[in-house]
Amino acid sequence: MLVLINGVFGVRMREVAGRLGAAVDALEFTWGTPVVVDDVAKKLREKTYRIVAVVHAETSTGVRNPVAEIGALLKGTDTIYLVDTVTSLGGIEVRMDDWGIDALYSGTQKCLSCPPGLAPLSFSEKAMAKLGARRTKVPNWYLDISLIANYWGQNRVYHHTAPVNMTYALYQALLLILEEGPEKVFKRHLDNHLLLVKGLEEMGLKMVVEKPWRLPMLNTAYCPEGLDELAARRCLRSEYKIEIGGGLGPLAGKIWRIGLMGHTARKENVERFLDALRKVIS
Amino acid sequence: MLVLINGVFGVRMREVAGRLGAAVDALEFTWGTPVVVDDVAKKLREKTYRIVAVVHAETSTGVRNPVAEIGALLKGTDTIYLVDTVTSLGGIEVRMDDWGIDALYSGTQKCLSCPPGLAPLSFSEKAMAKLGARRTKVPNWYLDISLIANYWGQNRVYHHTAPVNMTYALYQALLLILEEGPEKVFKRHLDNHLLLVKGLEEMGLKMVVEKPWRLPMLNTAYCPEGLDELAARRCLRSEYKIEIGGGLGPLAGKIWRIGLMGHTARKENVERFLDALRKVIS
Repeated sequence: MLVLINGVFGVRMREVAGRLGAAVDALEFTWGTPVVVDDVAKKLREKTYRIVAVVHAETSTGVRNPVAEIGALLKGTDTIYLVDTVTSLGGIEVRMDDWGIDALYSGTQKCLSCPPGLAPLSFSEKAMAKLGARRTKVPNWYLDISLIANYWGQNRVYHHTAPVNMTYALYQALLLILEEGPEKVFKRHLDNHLLLVKGLEEMGLKMVVEKPWRLPMLNTAYCPEGLDELAARRCLRSEYKIEIGGGLGPLAGKIWRIGLMGHTARKENVERFLDALRKVIS
Repeated sequence: MLVLINGVFGVRMREVAGRLGAAVDALEFTWGTPVVVDDVAKKLREKTYRIVAVVHAETSTGVRNPVAEIGALLKGTDTIYLVDTVTSLGGIEVRMDDWGIDALYSGTQKCLSCPPGLAPLSFSEKAMAKLGARRTKVPNWYLDISLIANYWGQNRVYHHTAPVNMTYALYQALLLILEEGPEKVFKRHLDNHLLLVKGLEEMGLKMVVEKPWRLPMLNTAYCPEGLDELAARRCLRSEYKIEIGGGLGPLAGKIWRIGLMGHTARKENVERFLDALRKVIS
């Protein structure tokens, strides 16, 4: 398989696949920049892959990867297109069928604003056919879709005890998004992202990611020169009850990661944060 | 490894281990009877195993296996003793250290009376040393204890987003058991089990499991001859809002499985059930 990497969660995908015995090639891109579609196209001309995998919203850097464009390269091939939508689902558009995604997984605790503990996932017909044609057993009994499909189907064959309460929580979380309207939810994320960026730039901070690739729900900015970034985050937390993230990997100590996910993506939160940060860095 | 099997969950242990690539031997015993310690001792004289695994409370048959006695056979050896306590924990005594258990897993949704969704587990020092000395990576990244241990330890290294709300639920469930007192909780399970057995036998039903091996939290009785057992269970559910289980595997269609777990192990529930069953089978 080919894993496209430009942050922590791409690295993790490679690690997970490698542990399961997959032969993994990787294309790596500078953290803070998106996957370059032309480089992927070139790689795909050199070699055919059973799976191509990418993270939609790189939570470690704030980059939105060109998922639709990569999907277009795979159209009509036998390759399974695997996309991590943990941070994107519920905050920006995710078009599984239109973008040719075959296997997609997410989390409940980001833009769905549901408690953590579930990983919603979806498979295309193509992926289900591939899973159904396996000649070896999945190493992980708990995640064997061929067994779980017997429960999903007409037979309702017991597989494992479902996390019922979490399922109700997810149902409610999705209902809240449908009631507000997904388009409005996406616009709310975008509007508050733009408000945040404007405020950060007015304070003299520089955004890490180029404009077209910025994630509204995960905003990264370089810390001002000479400032103790850890002390600033600690002060935000202790004095203002606001927690933001530090940089990871090559960006550790250099950037801040500011989440605006689901219910937290609101004007009053952005304004409260900007006020607090202004005081902390002044 | 050696898996001791006398029900569905022993079979599942073998399946899970086999999928992970383990070379699995099994000792099988008639469903509804306990693992025979002498047979295990004989097998252990023939061959040395890295892991010996058994289910404490076989939920499929209502049998309590002799976990302490099997543990005594393994004392002083290098063998890791793995025990499934999914249904036993919180309903009967589980003495991990005294019984020489090295790896133990349970579920929150049985006698702990907590929502389903977590699997509490515990490792002995011996098991942790074994895990620490692995030369190959665990296939399942999510369950790699060497990574999770970095979070448990001083470093608090991020591994995955924890199911926070479920953790609070488990905390509260354990608190309720400690407040009532574990000994009293075990006695409540036992007393209500005895009340149930007395009622079932007065109705002419025969228990599946011999007295010394009966689980208080999972009671199995043979359905009366000539009765449509599925229709009886459906009637219990629709008319009396009481759900009991049917038999599994070789016991399918022959037995009923009556749970008395955690908060449901109460006199009023036993009486309500006995009244309802009396009406259904008369």
